[in-house]
Amino acid sequence: MSRVLLATRNQKKLVELRRILEAEGVSGVEVIGLADVPEFPEAPETGATFEENAVAKAADAAKATGLPAIADDSGIAVDALNGMPGVLSARWSGKHGDDQANLDLLLGQIKDVPDERRGAAFVSAAALVHPDGTEKVVRGEWRGTVIREERGTNGFGYDPIFVPEGETRTSAELTPEEKDADSHRGRALRLLLPELRKLAG
Amino acid sequence: MSRVLLATRNQKKLVELRRILEAEGVSGVEVIGLADVPEFPEAPETGATFEENAVAKAADAAKATGLPAIADDSGIAVDALNGMPGVLSARWSGKHGDDQANLDLLLGQIKDVPDERRGAAFVSAAALVHPDGTEKVVRGEWRGTVIREERGTNGFGYDPIFVPEGETRTSAELTPEEKDADSHRGRALRLLLPELRKLAG
Repeated sequence: MSRVLLATRNQKKLVELRRILEAEGVSGVEVIGLADVPEFPEAPETGATFEENAVAKAADAAKATGLPAIADDSGIAVDALNGMPGVLSARWSGKHGDDQANLDLLLGQIKDVPDERRGAAFVSAAALVHPDGTEKVVRGEWRGTVIREERGTNGFGYDPIFVPEGETRTSAELTPEEKDADSHRGRALRLLLPELRKLAG
Repeated sequence: MSRVLLATRNQKKLVELRRILEAEGVSGVEVIGLADVPEFPEAPETGATFEENAVAKAADAAKATGLPAIADDSGIAVDALNGMPGVLSARWSGKHGDDQANLDLLLGQIKDVPDERRGAAFVSAAALVHPDGTEKVVRGEWRGTVIREERGTNGFGYDPIFVPEGETRTSAELTPEEKDADSHRGRALRLLLPELRKLAG
């Protein structure tokens, strides 16, 4: 059983990747998180793109632990905000990781934006960096619309205000399995499956 | 003396336009504000561009009053935010017109953005719409950098955190006359001078 480090402290992301690997029949890889390895200094996410941040995070983790490491950087790109919050999604309100404040702010900012201009995409870049420094970086996108009020309690971040194309429910109203099948991070992580299968040997 | 309506309730903008006309020797035009005309329903600013909002505001005012009307829509376009807050500058925090909240939010959002990526531009679109519906719309831009702490008490909006190119002071540390000479709104309003001179007759 080979190990791969998912460079996150977010338990939901760990569970999500394990669920995807299981659903895809990849059984020879154990996914561990940052809570399972000794602490190392983590650089702040100051990249201008999701890809830059994902690669930097995974490279730091691979270097510090000697394990192949996966990291993602994800966010919501709102058309009426020229693609922002983007890489700043998790700290849009100025407070890092305050999902409610970030979501409330976004709703307030686009309150006057008419329905036909409320398109958005969830975007995820995922990077796998090997201890020898070689890397693979991929991107998944999930188009949809930002609605005006929260609905649903699954998921996290901006899920309660995002209705994916072809859906009437928000991504916080989908089951975890439905979300994996379509979501930006699901798409990105599945694009890494060939690399993960190689690790499984 | 012919009258032109500046479609604003912002006393500072009125004073600014009068000062520019005086400096440019345009003497036959009296500038009045919305406080000087009977109230009329004002449409919310929901345009996707500064130009759209400026024209809509001026057209509403010209139609309601029968006077030639000028309106501007201005804001700050921050490179690291893909040009936002843009048309949402005055309500960036979700609360319309709360300069301090807007400025604090912007500083918080780009806290981790390094100095070399803190470029920005103040942008102003100004429209002059005649009672017959003919219109002229122009744009002024003022490039600079967003600093990390407020400095200066002149001006309004984002002035205390914007250092124009070629300056070491913020635009809130410039004198009103210095600001008029270079600012986005100064540039835009001066581009309307030929039209205003025609009005002066």
